[in-house]
Amino acid sequence: MKHNYLDNIPLEEAKEKFFSLIKNNFKHSSEIIPTAEAAGRVITEAAYAQICSPHYNASAMDGIAVSAKDTYGASESTPTILSPDRYTVVDTGDSIPDDKDAVIMVEDISFEPEGRVKIISSVHPFQNVRQIGEDICMGDMIAPSFTVITPPLCGAMLAGGITKVPVIKRPSVAIIPTGDEIVPPTENPEKGQIIEFNSSIFSGMLKEWGAEPKIYPIIPDKKELLKEKIKDASEKHDAVLILAGSSAGRDDYTCEIIKELGSVCVHGIAIKPGKPAVLGKIGKAPVVGLPGYPVSAIVVMREIVKDMIVFLSQGKIKEEEKITALLGKRIVSSLKYREYVRVTVGKIGENYVAVPLPRGAGIVTSFTKADGIITVPQNCEGIEQGEDVEVTLISSHKDITSSIIVTGSHDPIIDEINDILKIKGYPYSVSSSHVGSMGALNAVKMKQAHLGGTHMLDTQTGEYNKSYIEKYLDSKDATLIKGIGRIQGLMVQKGNPKKIHTFNDIVGHRYANRQLGSGTRILFDYLLKKHCIDKADIDGYGNEEFTHTAVAAQIAGGNADCGLGIYSAAQMYGLDFIEITVEEYDFIVNNDFIGTPMYNAFTEIFRSDELKKRMKKMGGYCFE
Amino acid sequence: MKHNYLDNIPLEEAKEKFFSLIKNNFKHSSEIIPTAEAAGRVITEAAYAQICSPHYNASAMDGIAVSAKDTYGASESTPTILSPDRYTVVDTGDSIPDDKDAVIMVEDISFEPEGRVKIISSVHPFQNVRQIGEDICMGDMIAPSFTVITPPLCGAMLAGGITKVPVIKRPSVAIIPTGDEIVPPTENPEKGQIIEFNSSIFSGMLKEWGAEPKIYPIIPDKKELLKEKIKDASEKHDAVLILAGSSAGRDDYTCEIIKELGSVCVHGIAIKPGKPAVLGKIGKAPVVGLPGYPVSAIVVMREIVKDMIVFLSQGKIKEEEKITALLGKRIVSSLKYREYVRVTVGKIGENYVAVPLPRGAGIVTSFTKADGIITVPQNCEGIEQGEDVEVTLISSHKDITSSIIVTGSHDPIIDEINDILKIKGYPYSVSSSHVGSMGALNAVKMKQAHLGGTHMLDTQTGEYNKSYIEKYLDSKDATLIKGIGRIQGLMVQKGNPKKIHTFNDIVGHRYANRQLGSGTRILFDYLLKKHCIDKADIDGYGNEEFTHTAVAAQIAGGNADCGLGIYSAAQMYGLDFIEITVEEYDFIVNNDFIGTPMYNAFTEIFRSDELKKRMKKMGGYCFE
Repeated sequence: MKHNYLDNIPLEEAKEKFFSLIKNNFKHSSEIIPTAEAAGRVITEAAYAQICSPHYNASAMDGIAVSAKDTYGASESTPTILSPDRYTVVDTGDSIPDDKDAVIMVEDISFEPEGRVKIISSVHPFQNVRQIGEDICMGDMIAPSFTVITPPLCGAMLAGGITKVPVIKRPSVAIIPTGDEIVPPTENPEKGQIIEFNSSIFSGMLKEWGAEPKIYPIIPDKKELLKEKIKDASEKHDAVLILAGSSAGRDDYTCEIIKELGSVCVHGIAIKPGKPAVLGKIGKAPVVGLPGYPVSAIVVMREIVKDMIVFLSQGKIKEEEKITALLGKRIVSSLKYREYVRVTVGKIGENYVAVPLPRGAGIVTSFTKADGIITVPQNCEGIEQGEDVEVTLISSHKDITSSIIVTGSHDPIIDEINDILKIKGYPYSVSSSHVGSMGALNAVKMKQAHLGGTHMLDTQTGEYNKSYIEKYLDSKDATLIKGIGRIQGLMVQKGNPKKIHTFNDIVGHRYANRQLGSGTRILFDYLLKKHCIDKADIDGYGNEEFTHTAVAAQIAGGNADCGLGIYSAAQMYGLDFIEITVEEYDFIVNNDFIGTPMYNAFTEIFRSDELKKRMKKMGGYCFE
Repeated sequence: MKHNYLDNIPLEEAKEKFFSLIKNNFKHSSEIIPTAEAAGRVITEAAYAQICSPHYNASAMDGIAVSAKDTYGASESTPTILSPDRYTVVDTGDSIPDDKDAVIMVEDISFEPEGRVKIISSVHPFQNVRQIGEDICMGDMIAPSFTVITPPLCGAMLAGGITKVPVIKRPSVAIIPTGDEIVPPTENPEKGQIIEFNSSIFSGMLKEWGAEPKIYPIIPDKKELLKEKIKDASEKHDAVLILAGSSAGRDDYTCEIIKELGSVCVHGIAIKPGKPAVLGKIGKAPVVGLPGYPVSAIVVMREIVKDMIVFLSQGKIKEEEKITALLGKRIVSSLKYREYVRVTVGKIGENYVAVPLPRGAGIVTSFTKADGIITVPQNCEGIEQGEDVEVTLISSHKDITSSIIVTGSHDPIIDEINDILKIKGYPYSVSSSHVGSMGALNAVKMKQAHLGGTHMLDTQTGEYNKSYIEKYLDSKDATLIKGIGRIQGLMVQKGNPKKIHTFNDIVGHRYANRQLGSGTRILFDYLLKKHCIDKADIDGYGNEEFTHTAVAAQIAGGNADCGLGIYSAAQMYGLDFIEITVEEYDFIVNNDFIGTPMYNAFTEIFRSDELKKRMKKMGGYCFE
């Protein structure tokens, strides 16, 4: 079992090395295309107008073309009458006859008998005439080399008689997925098969950036085969991306192969995620070995490959907006790396609040949920909650300000509400984080959420939520809004092979627990106490999941035998269910949020028949 | 000659009418496509995960899979030795065997004889294991209805076992150019023929916004034919744009036809440019009659058609950034309209300065040169110089801050410098406005430009530029930088048919003049005085052009017989040239700008052999 250690080169240095390698002796390849189809492309040489625009004296109005000197002296009191040979009817854009030099607009003339017209004011030469070259003069440079052709520029070049333009060829980029365990997208993967979705992510990103991706079939971990394909790709394409195999593990050949076929300038960058990237060149083609974890690879794509495409295409990519936000949760970071942390961003009152998402390199949903990215510099240990952070926005500013921030206990109805909002055409969306019921209290208290779901049992009174709110929150700040009843119970494998019928039966079986602070955990701990069970006797007590479906997934997947959760989750996974109680799932709402259009939309959907219909279908909910 | 008057409906009201018309009974049409190719599209229904991701317990590291309880108690001082049957070598992503539940990373083990391994720390269950559903749990909503599929979302859906998705069909938009005088793009249009470039502009804009344009052949002004084509287009496409014919002139049938085939809700909007737009609907297809002038039509595209495409596609278009800038030149506006003024924007010192571009509706280059747009509200008479204005940026922030603002007398070398900057790969560009030599003085004085070209003759001393600078500028603020010598002379038609040989010969012929404040005008007025010619005797004295090439274009096009200008312009237009003088074309430079990287780049190119080579080719320049 061999093991190579990676470098840890700072990003700027890595990029400098890489770009000086690929810029060396580089020439953009070009093609000539019709100007009319060239919008979005980049010209390789300056465009000079071939003709003037207008290329003749054109009427700027609907009216009559006249010789200006025939009109001198005309006024309301002493109108001038023009005989038919002294004027020509013209529409906007029509050519002015050679013996005429001005236009009187239709509103300012009146027709007299025998085709004569009466005019009541004079015009000067070239009045209401678009003179030759008014917009563009022949010989003028319309655009310098390497200009991105915007749609108006496309029009200007055509107006200047340029019907064909030399443009940079769109960079063609090969994407080579590798790995014995990798399979094409499927609905039924077998155990150990990893669905190859990275190539679709990168191909989408490349298209957004103006490149043309070409996805190769998956190559198994056979060095010679892989080498052959990489060589082929480097000859046929302007750049090559190799997916996975960039690390230093058993089957990671990428670096070796690039070295053999060309040169490697960087293997290992001081960024997290994204460290095990390989940067090199084969022939004239830049080659990047991307890490296998999607989140790591996306970071390398954004931080390095994007600039590579900009260099290859000379195109422009819209810059991402940056805003300042309050950090909603402490970030601890390593001194060794620059770290990229995905965050959700919401506007609560006057502040933008950024809340870090799960940081695992395999959590691709952290990118689908992210509104932006925070960069924690190398040599920085982290950032404290409440500090100002700069967020590079992925979502638009508009998305963020129209986002209802729901932080707390998870229930699928939150997602359903979001869906119904969209279907009904509301300009709002729901951004939800699953941090448990106590998390809802905290988030609303810290003004980091508009509202949050909560279902906390007061074990003294048997009442839900009320006493917690009273204890932790000021009634000036937050209000408890009545939600729904939910059936909680024990989920067990289909057919109940372990014969778990009462709560006491869980002892001796593997249990999937929920995280501290969640309502379900409070209920579980209460039930343990009530049944006089010691938590040390629960196998799996320390293994925490964050949602009902995650618990159900552990049981369905054989990682656990039982777990506490809601009926709808058991239903979804085809698990058996032993009902324990009906709990109250309510909302804690930030008082500032109540009465806003977003709040009204949320509550309207929450009370809607459409939502009730969906809840009935999911099962396990009670409402009046 | 019929004439219909247009409405003057405020934009918001017009849009409200239009969108309530088109939203009525509307249903998006959808298609099912492979998820792998769906990035950029919009899903029509919520996407729920079909499988968990990971769908099995996967190793998160390269290392060995073990049963956690076999490792309890292992430490540096009391290492544990595992026999080969107690561990399995795993790479990242490999499935964990059913009898194992944790992974020890390769760095933390050492191999012993007979395949045993030594471990020096314990792991807990599921440590270094990506548990089933870590990223996505089956049944979870991955995205609600009408979500734009980003590349990461594309990956997340595939990870969740969703291999096909229903998406909204890209709106297909018919573009119908109309008009007897309109011809397809050509290098050699005849007089009166208008090159049809609007369809390329709009097709480019539609593509940027995610629609699929379909350009129809040009339809002449024959009502029945046009009606037939519009009907056809409204049946085959999701929306129809009719180019020109939206006004109230002789041949403007658009409004009538839409009324006959469907309904019109707006004809005439209180915006400038863009007023004569028609908004309506035929069948289920929204139909927009665009004004014929490109600038007017672009404004209508941006203000109305863009939102129409967003509605049809449910897509997202990146919002344009807004910045606050100082207005560089007074804008006078009509109370009747909301006016859209194209501006260049530069960063001079700490301030952004916005300078209005020519406002003619036919000046398509005002859009190619524009960095942004200022909106002057209806009921506002205008905005004073120096006031703060909000600019909606067309260029990026980066473009603006890397733009060298050159305001003053025009010379083609400014454009050539820009081109060479681009070719040499400098990250800067030149943004130039042609406002004459006095304009350069003013712009540098008011800190609205980094520098400007100037060639002003002091008629007292015979010296160029120096005395003007001394008189108008403080040497603390600006410096005169030596430029080049330029040959000025009289341009006359090829073969000199009017036999103009000396300056005095211009009397009695049509003259093309330059604008007040330009160096050439100063020279001309000086020459008139010197030759004792009264300006009243100059035919065309009041007809001002803004560049040398514009003067040349008037002479070449027969609008004038002669004009003062530089040799290179005469050369370009094949005109004869009578040399008058060699003038000094220098640069006035804002002192704050001197020594900056942008200044250094500009002067480096200005002194370069490459530029000298180009100037020699153009002819008429003298330099040491």
